[in-house]
Amino acid sequence: MQLVSAYYSDFMAYLEANTFDQAPNGLYQPVDYIMQLGGKRLRPILVLMGYRLFHDKHEPALPLALAVEVFHNFSLVHDDIMDEAPLRRGKPTVHELYDVNTGILSGDVMLIKCYEFLLKAPAALIPALVQTFNEVAIKVCEGQQYDMDFETRDDVTIPAYLKMIEYKTAALIEGSLSLGAILAESGPDNCHHLGAFGRNIGLAFQMQDDILDTFGDPAKFGKKVGGDILNNKKTFLLLKAQELANAEDQAALKHWMSTKEFEEAEKVAAVTSLFEKYQVLEVASEQMQSYQDQAFKHLEKVAVSSERKKELADLAHELLVREF
Amino acid sequence: MQLVSAYYSDFMAYLEANTFDQAPNGLYQPVDYIMQLGGKRLRPILVLMGYRLFHDKHEPALPLALAVEVFHNFSLVHDDIMDEAPLRRGKPTVHELYDVNTGILSGDVMLIKCYEFLLKAPAALIPALVQTFNEVAIKVCEGQQYDMDFETRDDVTIPAYLKMIEYKTAALIEGSLSLGAILAESGPDNCHHLGAFGRNIGLAFQMQDDILDTFGDPAKFGKKVGGDILNNKKTFLLLKAQELANAEDQAALKHWMSTKEFEEAEKVAAVTSLFEKYQVLEVASEQMQSYQDQAFKHLEKVAVSSERKKELADLAHELLVREF
Repeated sequence: MQLVSAYYSDFMAYLEANTFDQAPNGLYQPVDYIMQLGGKRLRPILVLMGYRLFHDKHEPALPLALAVEVFHNFSLVHDDIMDEAPLRRGKPTVHELYDVNTGILSGDVMLIKCYEFLLKAPAALIPALVQTFNEVAIKVCEGQQYDMDFETRDDVTIPAYLKMIEYKTAALIEGSLSLGAILAESGPDNCHHLGAFGRNIGLAFQMQDDILDTFGDPAKFGKKVGGDILNNKKTFLLLKAQELANAEDQAALKHWMSTKEFEEAEKVAAVTSLFEKYQVLEVASEQMQSYQDQAFKHLEKVAVSSERKKELADLAHELLVREF
Repeated sequence: MQLVSAYYSDFMAYLEANTFDQAPNGLYQPVDYIMQLGGKRLRPILVLMGYRLFHDKHEPALPLALAVEVFHNFSLVHDDIMDEAPLRRGKPTVHELYDVNTGILSGDVMLIKCYEFLLKAPAALIPALVQTFNEVAIKVCEGQQYDMDFETRDDVTIPAYLKMIEYKTAALIEGSLSLGAILAESGPDNCHHLGAFGRNIGLAFQMQDDILDTFGDPAKFGKKVGGDILNNKKTFLLLKAQELANAEDQAALKHWMSTKEFEEAEKVAAVTSLFEKYQVLEVASEQMQSYQDQAFKHLEKVAVSSERKKELADLAHELLVREF
C-alpha cells in the first residue's frame, strides 16, 4: 500500500494547507475540529485514485478530493445531531462539544464550501462536476431520510433497504471515483464503469458492516458486537430473517424488537441464534460476494491497463477482507 | 407596479411547475410547505429584473430566480431552528410542524437543490454563477453566526453591526441582482454597480426595519412595535444610543437590558425615551438615507437607459417609503 499511503499523506498535506482558520471563529473552528478528527480518508483517496487511473499524477485532483471529504464530514455533523450521537471517532461530536446550533450552521457552511473546491477545476469541467456532485449529495440526504423513516416502519423490504444503503453510503463511494474520472476527462464509459465499481464496492462494504456487527470478532471489530440487534436496526440480516422465519420465529423476533425489558447478552444471543437458524449469514455473504463480483466486472471494463487498475483492486480487496 | 406583478406571477407559475413533490415524502413535503408559505418573493423578482435590464424578456432567468428563493427559504428553515421560532409568516415553522431533524435535513436538501437550478444556465456561465452564488451563501451563514454571537456580547460596535446586516440580509439582495446580471452577460461593471445598488438598498431596508420596530405605526407595522427592545436586540438604534449616552443613561440602558423583572410597556417606553433623548432616530434615518443615495448612484452607473431602470428604481422606492 505504498501508493495509498502517498495519496493519504498528500491529501492530509493539502487539508492542512486549506484549514478553515478564519472569522467568525464560532462558525469555522468546529469545521476544523471535525475535519481533523481523523478517519481513513477513503473517499478523497478514491477521488485521487480515480483521477490517477488516467494520468501519471494525482495532484490536480486534490481540491476535488477535499470537496468530497468536506461533504462527507458535513453529513456526519448533521447526521450526528439527528442521531443524538455523543461521540464520533471516540471524540465528542460537534453538537456535543459546541451546541446544536453550531452543528447546524457549521455544517451548512461546509456544504457550501464543497462547491468552492469544485470551482478550482478547469471551467469547462465545472458543470459536469457540479452536476455529479449534486446528484450524489441529494442521494445522501434521501438515504438519510429513508434510514430515519425505517426506524419507525415495520414494512421495510429488502429492496427498500438496499436502496437506502446505496443512497446513504454507496453513492458517495461511487461519486468519489466518478468525480475523479470526470476531472481526468476519461469519457462517459469510463466514468460509468468506474462509478459502478465504486457503488458495488460500497454496497459490499455496507453488507460486510452489517455482518460484522453481529458475527464479527469482538477483538477486531471496532464497535460493540450486537449493537445493531440491541438498537433494533433493520439490517439485511434482520430483514432476511423476518422474511425466512416461520410464524413462531417471526413472533419471537417481533417480541425481541418490542420488549423494553431484557438482558443485553440474552437478546443478542437469542436474535443471533434465529439468524443462524435461517442461515442469514450465508445469504448476506452471498449478496456481499455478488456485489463484489459486479464491482470487479465493471472495473475490468474501464479502458486502462490492468497494471494501472491494480492499486484500486488491491484497495477494494483490503477493504473487504475483514474476517468474520 | 404592473410589471412587478407580472414578475411575481411568472415566478409563482414557475415555482408551481417545479414543486418538490417526490419521494421520500418526509424529506420533500416540508420543502413544498415552506416554499408555498408565501412572502413578497422579492429576491426572485430582483433576479428577473436584474436580467431584464439587459434583455427584453425575463423568462430565461426563472431557474436562477428559483435557486435564490430556495436558498432564502433554506436559510429561514435553519435560522428558525436556531432561533427556536414557532411561527413564520403566521404559520408554524418547519421544525415546529414536523420536527428539528426534518428541519435540518429538508434544509440541507434545499441548499443542494439550489445548485441544480443554477445548472440550468448555459454551461459557459455556470462557473461564474456558482462562484457568485457561493460567495453570497457563505456571507449569509457568516452573518447568521455574527448575529448569534452578538446576542451574548456587550462589545458590539456599529461597524460590526453594519457588517453583520450586510452579510445576513443585504448580501442576498445584492446577489439576486448580480446573478441576474451575470446570466444576462452584462459585463463586470454592470454586475458590480447593480450588485452595489442591491447591497445598499438591502442595508437601507434593514435600517428601516430597525427604525420601524421601535418607531413604526403599530397599525401598519406587521410585527409588534418594541419587539427589538424587549429582546435586547443590538440594533443600530441601541448601539448608537449606547455610544452617545452619558454615564447615567448608559447605566439605565444597561439596567433595562439586564433586568428580568419589568412591565413590557414600561421597558419599551423607557428605552424609547432614551433613544429620543439622543436623537438616534435622526441618526439612523440619515444612515438609511445615505445608503439609499449610494444605491441610486450605483444604479445610475449601470449602462442602460434610465427608461429600463425605472421599474427597479420604483421598486426600491416602494420598499423604502414605509412611514414612520
